[in-house]
Amino acid sequence: MRKYGRNKVLVREIGEFGLLGRISGMLAEHAAGVVRGIGDDVAVLDASGPEYLLATCDIQVEGVHFTRDTITPYQLGRKAAAINVSDIAAMGGDPRWALVSLAIPGSTEVGYVEELYRGMREQAALAGASIAGGNLSRMESLIVVDFTLLGLVAPERLTLRSTARAGDAILLTGSPGESRAGLELILRPDLAVSPSSRQKLLERHLCPQPRLAEGQLLARSGQVTSMIDVSDGVIGDLCHICKSSGKGAEIEAASLPVSPAICEAAQGAGADWMEWVLSGGEDYELMFTSSPDAVLGLKKMLLDKTGTSCVQIGRITGETGEVWVRLADGKRIAPSVKGWDHFG
Amino acid sequence: MRKYGRNKVLVREIGEFGLLGRISGMLAEHAAGVVRGIGDDVAVLDASGPEYLLATCDIQVEGVHFTRDTITPYQLGRKAAAINVSDIAAMGGDPRWALVSLAIPGSTEVGYVEELYRGMREQAALAGASIAGGNLSRMESLIVVDFTLLGLVAPERLTLRSTARAGDAILLTGSPGESRAGLELILRPDLAVSPSSRQKLLERHLCPQPRLAEGQLLARSGQVTSMIDVSDGVIGDLCHICKSSGKGAEIEAASLPVSPAICEAAQGAGADWMEWVLSGGEDYELMFTSSPDAVLGLKKMLLDKTGTSCVQIGRITGETGEVWVRLADGKRIAPSVKGWDHFG
Repeated sequence: MRKYGRNKVLVREIGEFGLLGRISGMLAEHAAGVVRGIGDDVAVLDASGPEYLLATCDIQVEGVHFTRDTITPYQLGRKAAAINVSDIAAMGGDPRWALVSLAIPGSTEVGYVEELYRGMREQAALAGASIAGGNLSRMESLIVVDFTLLGLVAPERLTLRSTARAGDAILLTGSPGESRAGLELILRPDLAVSPSSRQKLLERHLCPQPRLAEGQLLARSGQVTSMIDVSDGVIGDLCHICKSSGKGAEIEAASLPVSPAICEAAQGAGADWMEWVLSGGEDYELMFTSSPDAVLGLKKMLLDKTGTSCVQIGRITGETGEVWVRLADGKRIAPSVKGWDHFG
Repeated sequence: MRKYGRNKVLVREIGEFGLLGRISGMLAEHAAGVVRGIGDDVAVLDASGPEYLLATCDIQVEGVHFTRDTITPYQLGRKAAAINVSDIAAMGGDPRWALVSLAIPGSTEVGYVEELYRGMREQAALAGASIAGGNLSRMESLIVVDFTLLGLVAPERLTLRSTARAGDAILLTGSPGESRAGLELILRPDLAVSPSSRQKLLERHLCPQPRLAEGQLLARSGQVTSMIDVSDGVIGDLCHICKSSGKGAEIEAASLPVSPAICEAAQGAGADWMEWVLSGGEDYELMFTSSPDAVLGLKKMLLDKTGTSCVQIGRITGETGEVWVRLADGKRIAPSVKGWDHFG
């Protein structure tokens, strides 16, 4: 192999966010039309139109994000699209167009690819978007799907992760951790869980529903100070909000939403439900902040208009970078798991 | 594996363009804001701004498009960006923003990734674009780089592949086939070729220069009826023009541009130079059509303003789908190789 610079440190030694920091540092320069660049899940671009352009991508790699025998190609297509819709939802935007880059072995069945596209097309259509282009390539033995989603957002509705204020309430939609419980049921199919819980948890992992209408309503309310979608786990994504806002946070363990299905699966697996809720990942719920005065109104509005419940789980503090969990006995602990790191 | 539909035909049995046809068929529906969707290399989107939005992506897969011991990470980064700039150039557009999706093993050196981004950043900057976002992911053993490029084009300057007219001249910039000759030198490093030819050919393969200024000038001339970048080989991309325009073409073998370096390498390799020129692929030259009256003016304009020469290699005919090569002796043959197919 040829020589290339002197940094012989391995990617796994600095982790996903260490590497992201290096890359951001290299690319941090003023660039024309870039409202928000590297560092957010979604790039915000000014193409001189009436709305900002949003652009995001997420790659699904066989053997890392999925295996062919645990998710159908239709479900994989739905998921590849859904996780990008979720990113656009968290900015308050409207998904519009997708590009799909697919690398597959020549030995893949055409029916597999058709089912994959059916899933992507349907999930995109549910979000008001269409697949407008992309790329096909051969790859040895593995399937890789990179889904790029473009959206639009009115500048006054754009909601960022970096604008939380000390004293804000932290709210969370739905039941994070259910996706992690569903993964457990895939890894250990013999776990004793009721059929209805099993079905629900598997669906949450295999076919997550992005909170698009919720994100748009919250952005339009004018009362949300910051927002993010929960893909790296509640703690992980709360750390993203705190770091980019220059704030800290305290979560009340007693306020965390826990569904009976998670409890059932965690009990069966001998796992800690709180760890699943706080650090499970791949939930695609929304976490957002607002003035404490606005909490009740936002909860009612979401429930009325979408049927989705949300709860306040804590508050933003001025303690930069400090994220704490207050237990029922009043003790404050630093959560052990900081969220999903690809190379962690 | 779970069941998914009934199409058990394998992707390699129908090839890249067969699969593309299936997918296009599934997605061919009127979609809001899509001016040109699947089927072109670049999606043309109407985001209600003064210009159309252009969106394209191309994936580089280790073991298929590159190997780590024959291209440096800096060169790979340059190339990943350049091939997308070339697509935008062929539409007459201005590259603006890029998203990079990178999947790498945790055992990759950080210096490798930094060099890769340095190459992408520099090539993007040369084209007036910046890297505004993307995604990092782990992957077992292989490196995959998916580069998505967004650009803008004034609606009146948009140049498509589908608008060639019978009787039009077919023009070609530069020396297609040099990239293929460079690949031969990588595969067979002991081939006897002069040092200057070797350097030129390797550079053409490892660090192709997209014809951005040329594409923009041609689009602004108002005299180009269709345009495409030559990535799949001259014949392959001429077939794309003919198919989407509903036309045919005849190439004059005696008019093909052949550089001394190609001749030298082809002679050394015992290969047919004409096959390299016609079907080499990865050239990133521009092929375009115009009225025969405009040929001289376009050639002069390009040479004056960019130093790039172009030649007329043939003409568009009304014989739908028929692409012929007329040899020096007047005989007309159907070219044997139709261009690059990922699964061919």
